[in-house]
Amino acid sequence: VPKARSRPKSARKHHPATLRAKGSHVRLPSIVNTGEEYLVQKLRRAARTKARETALRVGIGDDAALFTPRSGYETVLTCDWFLQGTHFLTEKHPPESIGWKCLARAVSDVAAMGGQPQCFLLSLALPASYLENWLDAFLRGLRRAAHTFGCRLAGGDTTRRDNILINVTVVGEVRAGRAVLRAGARPKDAIFVSGQLGEAAFGLQLVRAHRQIPSHSRNVALQRHFYPEPRVALGRWLSEKRLATAMIDISDGLSTDLARLCEASRVGAKITGASIPMPRAFRLRKPNRLSQLKLALHGGDDYELLFTVPNRQTSRIPDSFRGLPLSRIGVISNEQRLRLVDFDGRERTLPAYGWDPFRG
Amino acid sequence: VPKARSRPKSARKHHPATLRAKGSHVRLPSIVNTGEEYLVQKLRRAARTKARETALRVGIGDDAALFTPRSGYETVLTCDWFLQGTHFLTEKHPPESIGWKCLARAVSDVAAMGGQPQCFLLSLALPASYLENWLDAFLRGLRRAAHTFGCRLAGGDTTRRDNILINVTVVGEVRAGRAVLRAGARPKDAIFVSGQLGEAAFGLQLVRAHRQIPSHSRNVALQRHFYPEPRVALGRWLSEKRLATAMIDISDGLSTDLARLCEASRVGAKITGASIPMPRAFRLRKPNRLSQLKLALHGGDDYELLFTVPNRQTSRIPDSFRGLPLSRIGVISNEQRLRLVDFDGRERTLPAYGWDPFRG
Repeated sequence: VPKARSRPKSARKHHPATLRAKGSHVRLPSIVNTGEEYLVQKLRRAARTKARETALRVGIGDDAALFTPRSGYETVLTCDWFLQGTHFLTEKHPPESIGWKCLARAVSDVAAMGGQPQCFLLSLALPASYLENWLDAFLRGLRRAAHTFGCRLAGGDTTRRDNILINVTVVGEVRAGRAVLRAGARPKDAIFVSGQLGEAAFGLQLVRAHRQIPSHSRNVALQRHFYPEPRVALGRWLSEKRLATAMIDISDGLSTDLARLCEASRVGAKITGASIPMPRAFRLRKPNRLSQLKLALHGGDDYELLFTVPNRQTSRIPDSFRGLPLSRIGVISNEQRLRLVDFDGRERTLPAYGWDPFRG
Repeated sequence: VPKARSRPKSARKHHPATLRAKGSHVRLPSIVNTGEEYLVQKLRRAARTKARETALRVGIGDDAALFTPRSGYETVLTCDWFLQGTHFLTEKHPPESIGWKCLARAVSDVAAMGGQPQCFLLSLALPASYLENWLDAFLRGLRRAAHTFGCRLAGGDTTRRDNILINVTVVGEVRAGRAVLRAGARPKDAIFVSGQLGEAAFGLQLVRAHRQIPSHSRNVALQRHFYPEPRVALGRWLSEKRLATAMIDISDGLSTDLARLCEASRVGAKITGASIPMPRAFRLRKPNRLSQLKLALHGGDDYELLFTVPNRQTSRIPDSFRGLPLSRIGVISNEQRLRLVDFDGRERTLPAYGWDPFRG
């Protein structure tokens, strides 16, 4: 239920819910005075931005949003669940992180096509008791993500529910014909990965192990788990320079996402454990190298880009792109299976052990 | 967990999950063999269509879908929740209806902008036990709706959940500058509504009152509740002929959706109870006219179009459009409130009593 909040008189005068009958001096309450309308007002405020103009012509508040596509570009469309209990826990994940991450995950899919995010729809189901503090903090995180990714809130749908359900649809654009699909990898292509793998999964282990996570923790693994950064600029660069033959973002773990890329391309892959980029902190900590490798191979939530490059083009791939390391981890084969060269130099079959919600 | 199903040998040979190593005669299992992959395979089959070519270039199975927008058109974007317990009950609503209706509801928002639906994303969360019979029936209903509305399944996201969660995003197009918004109504514009109101809400009363609904019932009110028909052709006609100044679809009830249109346009409205189109069956049944009127005013789920037309253009609105009755029910006023002329001829304030998930 909406609460009256004190605000300066001048601001109150211009509050959108304050309607003024023409030729009358009586202030009327909004004729649509529902809890849902209250939530929509908050979303409308969160959608205000000083960011660069996007092609969004009509945003929140109508039956649908209107977006003017640029000629010569294709539209990239993706959506993602982010559900309490499945993808986050309200007692462990700060609402700012939930707001950031629900958008970052979907933006990462646009990055994996080589596209630029433009706007997004937010479907939000909430308990009524979350309409105040929780929602405000959630929207702060969401708004910061929207600003960082240059992706405007265009609309959505809201309802009440006894637990928090989030679905985000991101609309992006990519120059026509330049999108990098999963299906283009060819035998002998080199396999590259951006950033470092396993850190977000280690952050999740910390979240699971601790009863209460301090919301201002500066632990790097926690930050990676809470505030992942989709690799939009790298994806665009690879697509515009036509360097990648296939690309996918690592959301469910390297082993599972590499298997998906290979299956779409009808090829296989051989990767080398020792070449998989793992964070420096791992080397300093005690857990043995093998369990570190497991995190890097099967841990999800990294949102790094996995891409393939024709052998004769690999010299054009720098060691790092705008500070983000790029590592060559293996090669595409024509034998349709995944192989891993382990630390002991022996070749083993690599099972797809990443995140599968239907397992177990 | 995927079940082996018998199929003719020739079909098995071409099954997409059957990979064949190049130069080998050994049939290998899919390298991505997860429960989620099984669900995605079913969705991929459901997405196959003989319908007219849409602008969908890449559909299910990549990180995102690719859609080629037509030049001179704007993109219409909308999404809708459809949640077990909130919007449907698995023990009362046939899965075919759930599949049809989750898409119909979102398509209706595109119709209310005067747009043509093109493709959609389906986010589906399911218990593992629903992956067989329930999912197959759901996809039959969804596929029939997709075919009927000319709207192709382009992608989505799937996960496991202890109850069924559905979110549908529809992407449509409308000629640039021709979209009909909520905000264009002007004082003295006539108010029109398509079809008949209250029948779907009466269907919901039947669903609530009966323990078990026969899935093949031909009851008209039940059919309206189970299989609503978004008014895409009417919406497009009104937009292309530039006849409507404002438009909204009636999803939450006439009183609430009229209030939304008026609020967006900063106007009010006066409607006449006797002119509100109600189904013939209502007149034959015993419930008094007043409770019928309540269903028509505040019952949701009709998905008819509510639109305003400048007074000098009203002669261009026919009594029916392709068999769908169009009724003039009132007039826009500059006093920002809703008034109803009741059956007794007395004017009363009309409260927005439609569906509000946050009420109570």
